[in-house]
Amino acid sequence: MTDAIVHSPETPLWPRIRHQLREPFAEFWGCLILILLGDGVVAQVTLSGGKNGDYQSISWGWGLGVMFGVYAAGGISGGHLNPAVTLCSCIYRGFPWRKFPIYLVAQLLGCMTGAALVYGNHRSAIDVFEGGKGIRTVGLPTSTAGIFCTYPAEFMSTTGQFFSEVIASAVLQFAIFAINDQKNLAAGPLAPLILFFLIFAIGACLGWETGYAINLARDFGPRLVTAMIGYGSKVWTTGNYYFWVPIIAPFIGAALGGFFYDLFLYTGDESPLNWPYMGFDRIFYLLGKKEAPRIEHDMGMVEEAPSKEEIAHFSNSPNVSS
Amino acid sequence: MTDAIVHSPETPLWPRIRHQLREPFAEFWGCLILILLGDGVVAQVTLSGGKNGDYQSISWGWGLGVMFGVYAAGGISGGHLNPAVTLCSCIYRGFPWRKFPIYLVAQLLGCMTGAALVYGNHRSAIDVFEGGKGIRTVGLPTSTAGIFCTYPAEFMSTTGQFFSEVIASAVLQFAIFAINDQKNLAAGPLAPLILFFLIFAIGACLGWETGYAINLARDFGPRLVTAMIGYGSKVWTTGNYYFWVPIIAPFIGAALGGFFYDLFLYTGDESPLNWPYMGFDRIFYLLGKKEAPRIEHDMGMVEEAPSKEEIAHFSNSPNVSS
Amino acid sequence: MTDAIVHSPETPLWPRIRHQLREPFAEFWGCLILILLGDGVVAQVTLSGGKNGDYQSISWGWGLGVMFGVYAAGGISGGHLNPAVTLCSCIYRGFPWRKFPIYLVAQLLGCMTGAALVYGNHRSAIDVFEGGKGIRTVGLPTSTAGIFCTYPAEFMSTTGQFFSEVIASAVLQFAIFAINDQKNLAAGPLAPLILFFLIFAIGACLGWETGYAINLARDFGPRLVTAMIGYGSKVWTTGNYYFWVPIIAPFIGAALGGFFYDLFLYTGDESPLNWPYMGFDRIFYLLGKKEAPRIEHDMGMVEEAPSKEEIAHFSNSPNVSS
Amino acid sequence: MTDAIVHSPETPLWPRIRHQLREPFAEFWGCLILILLGDGVVAQVTLSGGKNGDYQSISWGWGLGVMFGVYAAGGISGGHLNPAVTLCSCIYRGFPWRKFPIYLVAQLLGCMTGAALVYGNHRSAIDVFEGGKGIRTVGLPTSTAGIFCTYPAEFMSTTGQFFSEVIASAVLQFAIFAINDQKNLAAGPLAPLILFFLIFAIGACLGWETGYAINLARDFGPRLVTAMIGYGSKVWTTGNYYFWVPIIAPFIGAALGGFFYDLFLYTGDESPLNWPYMGFDRIFYLLGKKEAPRIEHDMGMVEEAPSKEEIAHFSNSPNVSS
Repeated sequence: MTDAIVHSPETPLWPRIRHQLREPFAEFWGCLILILLGDGVVAQVTLSGGKNGDYQSISWGWGLGVMFGVYAAGGISGGHLNPAVTLCSCIYRGFPWRKFPIYLVAQLLGCMTGAALVYGNHRSAIDVFEGGKGIRTVGLPTSTAGIFCTYPAEFMSTTGQFFSEVIASAVLQFAIFAINDQKNLAAGPLAPLILFFLIFAIGACLGWETGYAINLARDFGPRLVTAMIGYGSKVWTTGNYYFWVPIIAPFIGAALGGFFYDLFLYTGDESPLNWPYMGFDRIFYLLGKKEAPRIEHDMGMVEEAPSKEEIAHFSNSPNVSS
Repeated sequence: MTDAIVHSPETPLWPRIRHQLREPFAEFWGCLILILLGDGVVAQVTLSGGKNGDYQSISWGWGLGVMFGVYAAGGISGGHLNPAVTLCSCIYRGFPWRKFPIYLVAQLLGCMTGAALVYGNHRSAIDVFEGGKGIRTVGLPTSTAGIFCTYPAEFMSTTGQFFSEVIASAVLQFAIFAINDQKNLAAGPLAPLILFFLIFAIGACLGWETGYAINLARDFGPRLVTAMIGYGSKVWTTGNYYFWVPIIAPFIGAALGGFFYDLFLYTGDESPLNWPYMGFDRIFYLLGKKEAPRIEHDMGMVEEAPSKEEIAHFSNSPNVSS
Repeated sequence: MTDAIVHSPETPLWPRIRHQLREPFAEFWGCLILILLGDGVVAQVTLSGGKNGDYQSISWGWGLGVMFGVYAAGGISGGHLNPAVTLCSCIYRGFPWRKFPIYLVAQLLGCMTGAALVYGNHRSAIDVFEGGKGIRTVGLPTSTAGIFCTYPAEFMSTTGQFFSEVIASAVLQFAIFAINDQKNLAAGPLAPLILFFLIFAIGACLGWETGYAINLARDFGPRLVTAMIGYGSKVWTTGNYYFWVPIIAPFIGAALGGFFYDLFLYTGDESPLNWPYMGFDRIFYLLGKKEAPRIEHDMGMVEEAPSKEEIAHFSNSPNVSS
Repeated sequence: MTDAIVHSPETPLWPRIRHQLREPFAEFWGCLILILLGDGVVAQVTLSGGKNGDYQSISWGWGLGVMFGVYAAGGISGGHLNPAVTLCSCIYRGFPWRKFPIYLVAQLLGCMTGAALVYGNHRSAIDVFEGGKGIRTVGLPTSTAGIFCTYPAEFMSTTGQFFSEVIASAVLQFAIFAINDQKNLAAGPLAPLILFFLIFAIGACLGWETGYAINLARDFGPRLVTAMIGYGSKVWTTGNYYFWVPIIAPFIGAALGGFFYDLFLYTGDESPLNWPYMGFDRIFYLLGKKEAPRIEHDMGMVEEAPSKEEIAHFSNSPNVSS
């Protein structure tokens, strides 16, 4: 919508307001869908006693949540659904830093609303499973707190928890950069489907030890909801105060994964790693001039890079359509 | 087929008749396939005592039913296969209201025929499972009524049943609008495959409590068939007269899901939510003039919307080909 | 390869010979892959006692067999891999009848070779499972004949077996016509993937009662191999001489499924059902003139049919590339 | 990147270095991802005692590992991730032989690093499973060596092991050639997804007897790591010195599979099988002239081959973009 149209008196009021909020709206609804399906599958498997699903269902359910969350948000906000992904977009792909807090809040609120819906939908089933109306516990065989956020396996030390979350988040970001790299085998219109497989992969292959939170919003948001609705302080203390691990580790892991992809494989000039001095001159000389010199040409391999036109056939991502 | 060709004496009689009935025919066959596979998988899992499939097979089977139902009908009638989807097409996307009853009848008849075929195919296996020739029961461990239509989990109150069906139907419609939104990451030619994943997602993540009917035709049609073939009045009374929930709730849920998608994310001007006064002036001033004024231009974000030509590369849906 | 090039003395001998045999070669290798994977998965599940797979693996394995069989043969011979599909191509899509026996023989030989390879690969595991070197039995708990071809569930009457195979084959052909119909939602380059889902669907939803042979070559070929390698005459007599059902029923079922698709949904003029008198005049007046009059124009719905150019973007099937 | 740009003083140092090493870097990271996911899933299934996954998860996990390994490396190095695939590219598709050792080393190092990461991530869980800190065993019920590399089923003779690995590797290469054959139904942009299904197929249908190593780097690399970190000499001696089978058999099997595909189905003139004397004159007359005469024209079937332009729509593989 051009500015002329947005401010035209012909345009109804709500579309004009919505136009300003489209990106946070999209992240909110994407995250809501993510949790509605993701926490939903854990609820179903847990509360049915494994009769209506098993660990594999959980791996799929989270993949499906991401897939449909991305279909809801992808064409509008980019479909990050994860503050760590937003962070890496800022660091490595020139996504505006000022949007980071807005995205974070929208993601968190979306995940919290999703968790509240899952809770509302399974209230009576939780009563039955916990053994009485209003009983809500953490860490017992009949506990249901694990429906909403992750708790680590018992034998894990804090270092182990941290390492596990960092690896899973690094794989997440490394793969996201790979499937969006137009100079590599970009997934193009298959991207939401491939993200399903990616989350499924992380769940099936790297997910057992900590439950693969890999996302502050997905873990902290619903954890906050469980604290509010009566699961008590054990949601914070369990696993030696594990709750902060999925707050910090995903950012570190994703930043690391993105770093390795860009350092070794990425040739686009959006990444500071392809700038002179790897962009560090920007930090040192920040006040000297507005923008450090960037190389103008592209680092790709000329012989093998698919032409812009060819890419356009396979990608409906907005930035190649121009 | 142009009118000239349709009425040409050269055109054989049957193609001329069929031309008038293509849409209901397509919905009929799509729904028949849907139930043949969907009820088929439940029959196989139930009657083999879980040896030839489990709950996951059921989630997949319904997804596969929708997928191949949509492949059968999608290019002809749009492949709704669900009156609630037809309703939302009428409300939010300008689908002609006069087609609603025709689609509803075709969908219902298709589902009934599919259920009859599944029954015919498994008659002797049902006899074995129920414990004798002609025994047909509801709600016992050896009952087989659950093959054909949904029955809720026992602990569910009617409110809970209703809430659960509304949420599942809302997710269904929200996601259908998302994957068909050309300004978002439209699924294009992947649509039938993505619908498989959508139905699988609803089954795996939101399906346990009521069996995710989310479709009047899919639930009421086969239920009618079971009433006809001797399962008795318990098909209506079980679950505190649950049968009406999947008749009403899918419409409400789908309307709600469509409403949220259009209110927060959709910018196309087919949706009344993007008209002045959200289209309500149309209702109030219905008699005053034939059509309320609509905004002429599109609400999309100009910078990010993929061009029409680009979309055409990924979508074989008829409405973008012109 | 033009005739000029084929007969050019510059062209090496083998490519010239191969050019004449490309289609049967493709069907042979496609069927070999089909059975190598399909019988392979049954072998693995059976011989490992369900430890390395279960019924779902079998549904997937056959789907994967068809998928990679079609990738091997699809661009060369059409990838029928099933005489019933070849038959329907002849009846409804103008595929030359003279090729039918060639395809049938190639398919049968491919399936037999595949079964022999699976047998060779699992010889010692079969010895272990059957309880002794060279013991080969049918119908006992330790029997392994079911690895190679289908045997019906015990409670099935011959009528039931026949009905079940006819339905499954009809769904197969109906869906194959749907996903190849350029006026419907044609699967285009997704076709082999969608065929995986189709075979998976038939296995999961319609496969329990008879094991969904739905293919003379897939069932009779390996059955012949088991008879040769010592499984005895019970491969023919079991299930009240069931062996002839998967020889006859797939042809009838596929013809029926194709008939329904063309009668109600297909508008292309390759199908005799869209000719005057549904093509029957061709039979009655066969001697009168060489070819009955066919309608020249296409029966499609002009408003909704995607343009030829649009289709070309999604399909790499040869006939739309011109 | 043209040579002019690479050697331009404007181009930062690291991109200039990286440009020379892009292909081995890509193979390294692709293999690292492959093993991180593949060995990761076996670790998860083994160490959780089957609670967090089963044999099917393992089939999927390896498929997912290949898929994301190929997304990481495919557009840069071709995404071989397997020395046997590199070998067949050299023999049958004109891939430069001088790159073979470089690829082999990069693949081996990537697999070793991946295995080390999986080991680091699961160290405490392995301690718990093996029954004590630092205990590492092979071949017992509580052993964990099978997480990292393959061990054959007990009843297998060395011949049987060899035959099994040869068949699986032949299917792998045959299918890889099929899905990359632009004159057949080339998978194009779906290729990484189809490779997921291919590895899943081999695991589900051909993988039980030896664990489908089908790859020197994937098996020998991690085996070396286990020898280094204390699993002892049994990693070499188990299964009658089985370790050399997945070193030799994948090369033989892949070469065989590629041979059959090219001999019977491939018509492109990159393959020596389509040259005069099948390329053997090259060997005999190697010193006589620099290059044996090759047929200039293409062996394809002119009528059915899709045009180059059409292919371009579906494939983002580098070699069709020119």
